[in-house]
Amino acid sequence: MITILTGGTGGAKFVQGMVKVVDPREVTVIVNTGDDLRWWGLHVSPDVDSVMYALGGQLSQERGWGVEGDTFECLARMKQFGADAWFQLGDRDLATHLRRTELLRNGATLSEATADIAASFGIQSRILPMSDERVETRIVSDSRELSFQEYFVRERWQPPVQGVYFCSADNATPAPGVIDAIEGASAVFVAPSNPITSIGPILAVPGIREALQRTVASVVAISPIIGERAVSGPAAELMKSAGLAVSCEGVAQAFQDFLDVLVIDDADLQRSAEVEALGVQARVAPTMMNSDSEKLALARAAMAAAQPRQPKGAL
Amino acid sequence: MITILTGGTGGAKFVQGMVKVVDPREVTVIVNTGDDLRWWGLHVSPDVDSVMYALGGQLSQERGWGVEGDTFECLARMKQFGADAWFQLGDRDLATHLRRTELLRNGATLSEATADIAASFGIQSRILPMSDERVETRIVSDSRELSFQEYFVRERWQPPVQGVYFCSADNATPAPGVIDAIEGASAVFVAPSNPITSIGPILAVPGIREALQRTVASVVAISPIIGERAVSGPAAELMKSAGLAVSCEGVAQAFQDFLDVLVIDDADLQRSAEVEALGVQARVAPTMMNSDSEKLALARAAMAAAQPRQPKGAL
Repeated sequence: MITILTGGTGGAKFVQGMVKVVDPREVTVIVNTGDDLRWWGLHVSPDVDSVMYALGGQLSQERGWGVEGDTFECLARMKQFGADAWFQLGDRDLATHLRRTELLRNGATLSEATADIAASFGIQSRILPMSDERVETRIVSDSRELSFQEYFVRERWQPPVQGVYFCSADNATPAPGVIDAIEGASAVFVAPSNPITSIGPILAVPGIREALQRTVASVVAISPIIGERAVSGPAAELMKSAGLAVSCEGVAQAFQDFLDVLVIDDADLQRSAEVEALGVQARVAPTMMNSDSEKLALARAAMAAAQPRQPKGAL
Repeated sequence: MITILTGGTGGAKFVQGMVKVVDPREVTVIVNTGDDLRWWGLHVSPDVDSVMYALGGQLSQERGWGVEGDTFECLARMKQFGADAWFQLGDRDLATHLRRTELLRNGATLSEATADIAASFGIQSRILPMSDERVETRIVSDSRELSFQEYFVRERWQPPVQGVYFCSADNATPAPGVIDAIEGASAVFVAPSNPITSIGPILAVPGIREALQRTVASVVAISPIIGERAVSGPAAELMKSAGLAVSCEGVAQAFQDFLDVLVIDDADLQRSAEVEALGVQARVAPTMMNSDSEKLALARAAMAAAQPRQPKGAL
């Protein structure tokens, strides 16, 4: 059994590769829900959706989000109505949110609703939201505060960021199965997702970080930073705002208390020593995932990096 | 100013013709909402939608409901999820329900939400739901009870009908403007809609029937029955269950207490005397509306039938 902690974009690609090298039924994916939003009255869970679409073989390759080949007829009408339309929902995608919202309204938890929809997509891996409770990633920018999607989509991650916090995280509990999946796995992987706003919310749920420190499984992360730049999205700006170096070393810092191995890009070979100075083993591999074969190769490198754990407490 | 009471299918066609012979800004349409339903968590108002789509020039001619040229991508996914899918919502149509539901959630009344959406469609006539409160048409069939859409769409109006009632009608009030539109009109038209489940719910809202009796406007109905058959839908079965003759005479009976003139089909010329024996004047015209020119001709015939009222109280 292996467990993967992930956000949407890069993480969803990583998960696609992993289920090609491990029996999908042996994989549990713990997904960030700090980006979730109420949109047109529906519960949208962007990272859960990306992972479901990725595992269901229907993630749009071109867009990196939503359903391949989706249409946008409903969205066009919503614009005509003067409704908010900066967050784009395709017509097929919309069904996911309608279904989830209805299941939640009928009393299902987010875990249960996710399992129901994932089963409809024929997904064999287990997808767990980090928590069934609402935890909201908030971006502090100058004198205002933005939700993650307001910051990321509406404002195209242009506003300066002074800080990030996770509203209601202190009172949240991990979704059923999350702690067991971390403690009972033979290896835990932290996908190459934004450490602050994709992995950060997961770690902010009380009990999850402790489980990662405690587990006997090897914990392997893949750096979403190559050189001093993020592969995609605002990870660099957000790491800077959190006082982290924008480099694979910064990623190692962010996860230092529970991380055994960090897979860094070939281009960062010379940074291995800095990572290892933090007590985290460095493994070098090509980390870009522009094709199925690259996803497969990275998954293999990640699996190879997982090895029986040195108790962290002994460091 | 003229006012039209209507349901969806036939009534929507009639309204289309009327706004070609009267300035659309002079037209108020009072619409049945007894068929409204909660579907996928959204507030769907089928007759209001048909009237809006008809007046917005986007009603599907082929289907008689929904938006011309609409796609059904979301519906196909909902089927895949195992969600109820017997009531079909197109992708563009869906935006109407998402928007309405959001406006209602934000505190708008159904009248306000309708006005908002109708304005987005560039509709110049005023569309009023019969009531802002929930009135639900219930069909009694053997040992069970069905909502109108369950009876009409899901069961294709096959179940035997013992009776129809309008749940919560007694406590409902006419939507703002409804009574004034009836009392202040120069003519009131009852569209060729099902007298029991399209016009019936409107008449069940306390105050509306009384306003029709009281108004100085001429009240003109168009018979939805030709010979002994309904032009479309279950009007015949429903009239029978209500103890009415299935004929234009039965339509005159249903509205006898407030109706001045009934426009009956050419084919029913020989039934004029039966209608007039009920104290309702009969006018004969072609009532089928299979083309724009037929809609226009019927609208002209209806307008010609409207004339200064003989006080009903004097009958």
